[in-house]
Amino acid sequence: MNIYAQRIEALRALMAQKGWDAVLVSGSDSHSSEYVAPRWHQPRWLTGYDGEGEIVVTADHAGLWTDTRYFIQAEKQLPGTGVSLHKTRVPEQVLIPQWLGSQFPVSAVIAVDGLASSKAEVDAISAAMSDARIVNEPDLLSSLWTDRPDIPCTPIITLGTDITGESRAERIEWLRDFIAEKGCDAILLTALDEIAWLLNVRGADVEYNPVVISYLLVSADELCWYVRKKGAVDDETAASFDELRAEGVEIYAYDDVVPALSSLAFEGVRSIYTDPATLNYSLGNVLDLSGMNVVYGRSPVSLRKAVKNAAEIEGMREAHIEDGLAMEKFLYWLQGQLEMDSPVSEWDASCKLHELRAEIPGFRGESFETISAYQENAALPHYITPEQDSARLEPHGLYLNDSGGQYLFGTTDITRTIPLGPCNELEKEDYTLVLKGHIGLARAVFPKGTSGCQIDILARDPLWKNKRNFGHGTGHGVGFFLNVHEGPQDIRQNFNSTPLLPGMISSNEPGIYREGRHGIRHENLVLCVEDGSNDFGTWLRFETLTLCHFDTSAIKKNLLSQDEIDWLNAYNAHVYETLSPRLSPEVAKWLKYKTQAI
Amino acid sequence: MNIYAQRIEALRALMAQKGWDAVLVSGSDSHSSEYVAPRWHQPRWLTGYDGEGEIVVTADHAGLWTDTRYFIQAEKQLPGTGVSLHKTRVPEQVLIPQWLGSQFPVSAVIAVDGLASSKAEVDAISAAMSDARIVNEPDLLSSLWTDRPDIPCTPIITLGTDITGESRAERIEWLRDFIAEKGCDAILLTALDEIAWLLNVRGADVEYNPVVISYLLVSADELCWYVRKKGAVDDETAASFDELRAEGVEIYAYDDVVPALSSLAFEGVRSIYTDPATLNYSLGNVLDLSGMNVVYGRSPVSLRKAVKNAAEIEGMREAHIEDGLAMEKFLYWLQGQLEMDSPVSEWDASCKLHELRAEIPGFRGESFETISAYQENAALPHYITPEQDSARLEPHGLYLNDSGGQYLFGTTDITRTIPLGPCNELEKEDYTLVLKGHIGLARAVFPKGTSGCQIDILARDPLWKNKRNFGHGTGHGVGFFLNVHEGPQDIRQNFNSTPLLPGMISSNEPGIYREGRHGIRHENLVLCVEDGSNDFGTWLRFETLTLCHFDTSAIKKNLLSQDEIDWLNAYNAHVYETLSPRLSPEVAKWLKYKTQAI
Repeated sequence: MNIYAQRIEALRALMAQKGWDAVLVSGSDSHSSEYVAPRWHQPRWLTGYDGEGEIVVTADHAGLWTDTRYFIQAEKQLPGTGVSLHKTRVPEQVLIPQWLGSQFPVSAVIAVDGLASSKAEVDAISAAMSDARIVNEPDLLSSLWTDRPDIPCTPIITLGTDITGESRAERIEWLRDFIAEKGCDAILLTALDEIAWLLNVRGADVEYNPVVISYLLVSADELCWYVRKKGAVDDETAASFDELRAEGVEIYAYDDVVPALSSLAFEGVRSIYTDPATLNYSLGNVLDLSGMNVVYGRSPVSLRKAVKNAAEIEGMREAHIEDGLAMEKFLYWLQGQLEMDSPVSEWDASCKLHELRAEIPGFRGESFETISAYQENAALPHYITPEQDSARLEPHGLYLNDSGGQYLFGTTDITRTIPLGPCNELEKEDYTLVLKGHIGLARAVFPKGTSGCQIDILARDPLWKNKRNFGHGTGHGVGFFLNVHEGPQDIRQNFNSTPLLPGMISSNEPGIYREGRHGIRHENLVLCVEDGSNDFGTWLRFETLTLCHFDTSAIKKNLLSQDEIDWLNAYNAHVYETLSPRLSPEVAKWLKYKTQAI
Repeated sequence: MNIYAQRIEALRALMAQKGWDAVLVSGSDSHSSEYVAPRWHQPRWLTGYDGEGEIVVTADHAGLWTDTRYFIQAEKQLPGTGVSLHKTRVPEQVLIPQWLGSQFPVSAVIAVDGLASSKAEVDAISAAMSDARIVNEPDLLSSLWTDRPDIPCTPIITLGTDITGESRAERIEWLRDFIAEKGCDAILLTALDEIAWLLNVRGADVEYNPVVISYLLVSADELCWYVRKKGAVDDETAASFDELRAEGVEIYAYDDVVPALSSLAFEGVRSIYTDPATLNYSLGNVLDLSGMNVVYGRSPVSLRKAVKNAAEIEGMREAHIEDGLAMEKFLYWLQGQLEMDSPVSEWDASCKLHELRAEIPGFRGESFETISAYQENAALPHYITPEQDSARLEPHGLYLNDSGGQYLFGTTDITRTIPLGPCNELEKEDYTLVLKGHIGLARAVFPKGTSGCQIDILARDPLWKNKRNFGHGTGHGVGFFLNVHEGPQDIRQNFNSTPLLPGMISSNEPGIYREGRHGIRHENLVLCVEDGSNDFGTWLRFETLTLCHFDTSAIKKNLLSQDEIDWLNAYNAHVYETLSPRLSPEVAKWLKYKTQAI
């Protein structure tokens, strides 16, 4: 029995003792974050699986629910643990609430960690199981996970208006107007990136996500930030707190949010607005018992944060120039290493790219874990490059690098699939068809009001026409020196009614994955911009922000239309013109060659 | 004050007398039909406006709510009536429930004709107005509309299994399995096309729609059809009733549905399934008070009816050959008339096409009112050709004909936009761009599970790239010798999760409309078919059923890709090969010329 099977057995013993029929182990934190601090790597601790997903354990079953992106990874990591894979985002999917309902048709006791599950998630289980009793057991794994990490506590910095384009006073005033409009007395923000955006603060509490673990309560005359433990903080944080206090932000300990919410009604707060999608179940219970009228709705911060202002757009442009320079230096270095027959592993390549990004002033780390994957490893869209014994890059076939940087003035996310030498016909065909899809979306023109799912097919049609497809979304929103994945817009098949608006930045990343063979993805970030109005309405299009050439050596030119060839040549020429003045002569010369028109 | 303003004043007098604050005058019948018998032309009687839409009258306001397709028509017909246009399907739309809520924030009495409004529609008003009292006044306009027509009563025919591919016994058995699966004792069908499909009967109660006004109640051991008045019926209907009775269908008078539903609980029916989208508000009230458990859900007949069986597909193919022959004869005739300088009006053209269709054995009338529109008249997507003084067709510019036939073995719907001679550059550009859109959708390949809104852009992208658009859906489902508009699938921007399935028949009809200039639409019907499976899933595509050439004289060839040119040439060649053996030598020769490859 491996260690994970033992841990699951220990959990079952706890379940028997407590009288629980099922336990939900979510992969989220208390703020419904997509990426979480190690304290909340609960599925990983329990099962060894370290992708996204959720675990349900019953007396005789343990299951992982995850989507197409993680099937291969789950099938590698789960054997020996006794955990079964339940596939989601497939036509025959049975989601956790329905599965629990089918397992326990009569009655059951379902235990959840209310500090690691959202209210919405637990409510969905309640709704699917009319006779179930939900038991909230905050930190329920802690009694088994004895060396569980604590809540992180990194230095907090503030950003000036020169960077953010808008002061926290302006943002707070706007939020207070929203509360008044909704007829509420207060709003509770729980999403970490929303709080960081509103207060113009950044931290490093979650790897790759420059956020601060905290809650924010805003009323007409008070602004209370629940953050950090009671006691001393580092100097940088202390200075930030001073700046915030001077602007009327009251600083409280993180855990004080519970008594504060419980007593708000006594202080005259009759109604509070909050977003059930990011509110955790425990706090939801506190609010429901608080005596206040709780108005559940989508947080207004999400949409406003997604629409970047002029300063943010300016910063993002600068970040993409800097990041593009690092990428081109990296690609030049990589080609040189291969030509000299110097051994380069996936891990080495990842480290080299990190070095080049780290030289950029304002660099604050990667925006997510770099995917550095050669050939068949790239067939896992979320491959994790091992530090030891990662694959050596050979001078043939395709190498995929998906990476990005956090800078004080912006966030990047780029994927290039690089032909390291000769490629076979299928590789070239796939490379070209995915590029056609990328160009199809990049060239989109659409009327105001259009949402991502209505244009997603532009990135898929060239693949569909050849009966190929990819199992992930085409585009996600990207934050401004914030989370690399943000909403509310996206570009994917799922119905999401949020329209694409001028100022929104999204990724454009079609791909194709062939298990045991290769994986290809071509990703740029695109800014939605206005493109005039006429009798038929107001028109929008995308402007590509990412600056790094697409390698033309693996292209099957006969698969591209003249429009597509023109786009590609113009893009590569634009990359050369923008970056070459800041590259060394030899790298600039190499880039000139790599960006020759086809 | 014109006659409509007088009628609205008379309604206001009634409102004052009854104490109603607002009256909803729906354009629907008791079965939520899209097309309705003259008895239910209530908005037309009240306001003179004869497009789709709904009227709300208050003491100081009268409004018509309708969508983009009818804006121009409404703006022509409403002046003098005092009725304001409220636009729907536009970003700033305020729908009736929200508008009523804003007009009557405190409390109000809203009168509805429960026999002409769906339960879903009235429930939406209730939901938006917490303090409103809904008064159900069946046939509320009848006291003012003294010569209001009666419920129609046309001969009823039955269709054999050779035509429908499935006996009513098989369909009834399938429906009973559905009821059992849902744990219900009975189902009430209220949608007229669903009843006609299930019983393999057809009538002519609604112009263009071969349906029978009736309700159908199905339980495990009973099958009660509420149809016609008590008393004698015509011979054809009597024979049909005999055939149905022999198969266990009990025939009752239409109005008997109310007492029947009221007493079902006493007969041991504990739960009944019905679709709130087509149930009228009056019957909804009867069910709610019946003592039965009412299970509201989408009718299963809708989806099953949409997926045509082999016999239905065979019949639809035959219908499209016959209809295509009539269309080509019509176009040949039209060109001849113009060449001979014989005067032809829009109305004349419409009559000629009717004559040609009427020669086809099994012809049962048009499937909708023919739109025969020259130049700027075609800019109204739902133009009604006047019998008197319709425009004369001149040997230049574009003539649009949107028409279709009902045949015993199928239903057709086709639009051709015909260059009658020289066209200007804008006309040619628009003609070609709309054709690009049509071809884009016709050539679609997509994975199983895809729904219409995910591929709709294929028909729009060539227009969008040129900042042009059209304000209606791209495709609607089409019945088998049934309604020319049917669900549940469609191809449009709106989110509709119903996937496109093999066997579904939809229209493919992008267009463009320029007020005062021209209107263009290119419409074929397409059948969804399987196109193989591979590692990436099961693939679907469309097969075009409609057989009538696209005129190439207005095409700007440089706007078409080679793939598009190939599709067009292959389609026109296919039309010629299929139809020419059944055309006279001179028409065949003309068609050969018209279908020459470009």
